[in-house]
Amino acid sequence: MKINGTEYCSLWEENSKALSISAIDQRLLPFRLEIAKIASYKEMVMAIKEMTIRGAPLIGIGGAYAIMLALQEIVQNKQPFEKINEIISEIRSARPTAVNLMWAVDRVASKIDFSLSVEENYERSLQIARQIYSEEVRACKQIAKSGFDLIENLYSKYQRPLNILTHCNAGWLATVDWGTALAPIYYAHRKEIPLHVWVDETRPRNQGAKLTSFELLGENIAHTIIADNTGGLLMQTGKVDAVIVGADRVTSKGDVCNKVGTYLKALAAKEHNIPFWVAFPTSTIDWEISDYREIPIEERPSEEIDYIEGEYLDKICKVRITPTGSKSLNYAFDITPNQFVSKYITELGVFDSIQSLKDESFT
Amino acid sequence: MKINGTEYCSLWEENSKALSISAIDQRLLPFRLEIAKIASYKEMVMAIKEMTIRGAPLIGIGGAYAIMLALQEIVQNKQPFEKINEIISEIRSARPTAVNLMWAVDRVASKIDFSLSVEENYERSLQIARQIYSEEVRACKQIAKSGFDLIENLYSKYQRPLNILTHCNAGWLATVDWGTALAPIYYAHRKEIPLHVWVDETRPRNQGAKLTSFELLGENIAHTIIADNTGGLLMQTGKVDAVIVGADRVTSKGDVCNKVGTYLKALAAKEHNIPFWVAFPTSTIDWEISDYREIPIEERPSEEIDYIEGEYLDKICKVRITPTGSKSLNYAFDITPNQFVSKYITELGVFDSIQSLKDESFT
Repeated sequence: MKINGTEYCSLWEENSKALSISAIDQRLLPFRLEIAKIASYKEMVMAIKEMTIRGAPLIGIGGAYAIMLALQEIVQNKQPFEKINEIISEIRSARPTAVNLMWAVDRVASKIDFSLSVEENYERSLQIARQIYSEEVRACKQIAKSGFDLIENLYSKYQRPLNILTHCNAGWLATVDWGTALAPIYYAHRKEIPLHVWVDETRPRNQGAKLTSFELLGENIAHTIIADNTGGLLMQTGKVDAVIVGADRVTSKGDVCNKVGTYLKALAAKEHNIPFWVAFPTSTIDWEISDYREIPIEERPSEEIDYIEGEYLDKICKVRITPTGSKSLNYAFDITPNQFVSKYITELGVFDSIQSLKDESFT
Repeated sequence: MKINGTEYCSLWEENSKALSISAIDQRLLPFRLEIAKIASYKEMVMAIKEMTIRGAPLIGIGGAYAIMLALQEIVQNKQPFEKINEIISEIRSARPTAVNLMWAVDRVASKIDFSLSVEENYERSLQIARQIYSEEVRACKQIAKSGFDLIENLYSKYQRPLNILTHCNAGWLATVDWGTALAPIYYAHRKEIPLHVWVDETRPRNQGAKLTSFELLGENIAHTIIADNTGGLLMQTGKVDAVIVGADRVTSKGDVCNKVGTYLKALAAKEHNIPFWVAFPTSTIDWEISDYREIPIEERPSEEIDYIEGEYLDKICKVRITPTGSKSLNYAFDITPNQFVSKYITELGVFDSIQSLKDESFT
């Protein structure tokens, strides 16, 4: 997708003497476009933890490449191969909530074969990471098309520009290209369906105000940033035609773990009979979990509530916005139970439930 | 109530050659405690518009004193008395949503008598402003006692420290003393009921993170600041025992206009069978409006979304947090329909509906 007219994706391979990874440093957007160089597995773990790269699908890809980087380092530094097991757990636990990370790491890890050389394992891991990467791009493009049908139907019904609300950033920056929640919007825009996006600011890290708005600017899509508090009023006054969000983990029952605040929008959408759509690649489904209470909800540093970063006189600076002395709590995700989800949008199509997705696609 | 051990109220008279008003400059809290001097009606209108003073009950008092200041200026500058009518409309429309402002201004204005001298009218207006002031303090103290009963009942039921969530700032800074939503909390704390307050940050102006936290610190009440997005998760996981908020306008049917985001919390409270209490003096009731869609919802400058003020190296500075090029929209209030309100807490007692309040108290 485009930034100032130039095509980008969020992460790519860089090949010189050794293979390394380059990624857009998402902590600096929308103020600076800088590329982070990630040359070791430790750097990738830090990039995931500190949210240099973020978004469930993208941290999955980061995790897969981290194993490749680790094997490359073992070869280069002549370290014992067995070290990889410990490293894999370290990568796997860089962030706890999004299942894509575990899914991608496990997919690479399961192919490690101690009867082969480290070099051969390195080659294997690289192939699988690349496979996950290209599958993810394809899946997002498919999600774009699946979701487009829903938007087109809504447009046929209303015959006027549509207002779609989204929370957090589930665009191409959260994946490699296209995105999940934003993918159908990009596709609809290219198909000339007139639409306008309400962008939830998404406190405390402001991924909506910083990243979703930045993405939509690049693709020239009409949008308005709002405080997270505003969605209820907009729905009450008929200004929202649909809500579309991504997901960090979806249980086998269809309960959706996503950025904190998603649930409040789902409650309001239900109250006002507004479609609430969740878009994700099926790698986001955690088939092992049926009770959503088993999903670990990441608690991030309280500094993310107490300080906020912005631009001041061309510098990026971090200002304190709470009194010293007050405590803060920073849960990053919440759960939207399945009864609040109107449609699940995936690369395999649009479904009313995860059970129907399973019945049609996995049996 | 206390700031660093010293008793304050939010606004008071200052008497030297002419009468003027002093008020805590709420735009600078919690970083600086500075007193704004308000010596003319124009300064009071600006103080209300720019939120140097804010909170429905407090801007009512500000509006009443503004008429006194205007009459004082007419006397001092020997201006035509008739000017007052135009000035009254100007004061009345400083902010559109809170009905207390119109109510207090009208109460003073209705006593203006053109058959008397300006001096006599000045004296009258001062007396009525003082009366509104002391009635408001008494009402808030009464609200404290009314709401205390609800908290005490909840404590008898759970027999453990209570977790109460509040949105925005409806504490003593929003009134003169005690507050509305926070008044019962202060009272319960003095009566040694153990409790902890979840403080909604309250974007975009962060009155929760800046003012409510500051108030609670001063009174030594346990509290935690959270992003507005967090309430749904906390309710879902049993961490909220009650929600208590203030109001800017309550219709005769009991629909509540309050800080934007209140409605989302009300929806979540309903879903999880958590009591949702609204506390306000009866001057907040707009008996003229039965359909809440008639309430004008204030749209404030989009800069309040695009920039945020905080402390950086001991300076207060304003940083930009959205991309230039993106639009923002800033509605300040929303509506919580009456079916989401469990109890109305007023100086006249606790009621299930505005109708029952009317039946018991006004007929």
